[in-house]
Amino acid sequence: MNFFSLNKKLESDTYYINDFLLCRLLLMNNKNYPWFILVPRRNNVTEIYQLSEKDRHQLDYEINEISKKLSKYFNADKMNIASLGNIVSQLHIHVIVRYKNDLSWPEPVWGKSNSEPYSENKFLQIKKDFKKMFAYL
Amino acid sequence: MNFFSLNKKLESDTYYINDFLLCRLLLMNNKNYPWFILVPRRNNVTEIYQLSEKDRHQLDYEINEISKKLSKYFNADKMNIASLGNIVSQLHIHVIVRYKNDLSWPEPVWGKSNSEPYSENKFLQIKKDFKKMFAYL
Repeated sequence: MNFFSLNKKLESDTYYINDFLLCRLLLMNNKNYPWFILVPRRNNVTEIYQLSEKDRHQLDYEINEISKKLSKYFNADKMNIASLGNIVSQLHIHVIVRYKNDLSWPEPVWGKSNSEPYSENKFLQIKKDFKKMFAYL
Repeated sequence: MNFFSLNKKLESDTYYINDFLLCRLLLMNNKNYPWFILVPRRNNVTEIYQLSEKDRHQLDYEINEISKKLSKYFNADKMNIASLGNIVSQLHIHVIVRYKNDLSWPEPVWGKSNSEPYSENKFLQIKKDFKKMFAYL
């Protein structure tokens, strides 16, 4: 059996939303941005090119569906999608809703010190909406 | 006929390397990082999810081949791959070679003021190597 192991920092910085066929969807616990993270449930992978072609196509599909839906749900000005991994090397893809009046625009969101946690109720509402929104995935 | 039009800022910040089936490969004129940009040759597209599924698969293929080859050629510590577009909205994907001793590590490279242009000779060498390296694409 291959048990998927999530990096401890990713785990502590986020809320768990759902598992799709390939990825785990997490929400960064920072209400300054609607900031999601997709983690392919494969161990010992740090770069997208290390995934099999089948996994890459599934990743493309999940990023595509999620970014399209999030863009609409949050009425985004722009989506930022990125695989960086300079701090946490476990492969993870940021899917971030950006607004022209958000705290960092037009800069990227990484490396800013501001971070504001969600209330439990707000998070539970998002989780409920998203599990419904992504039920077909 | 559908003439592809490259955003003027992307054009002025980069060197042209090559056209693949879908994307134009550009090199940022900043020798502080091996920083490449793939621009799908489709007009009026700002988000990956606006591409057709066929184009998305081709994009995945080109990102995959290029990031794998660049990682090896430059002996990268990490690849950073990102579609942001907060400043230039024309869809473009950053493919950046990162080193643990580069100027911004572990921060992302965007929004830093440092930028150092390539010499003409250095650029011509890179272009020659890359045209050869990616001739199969």
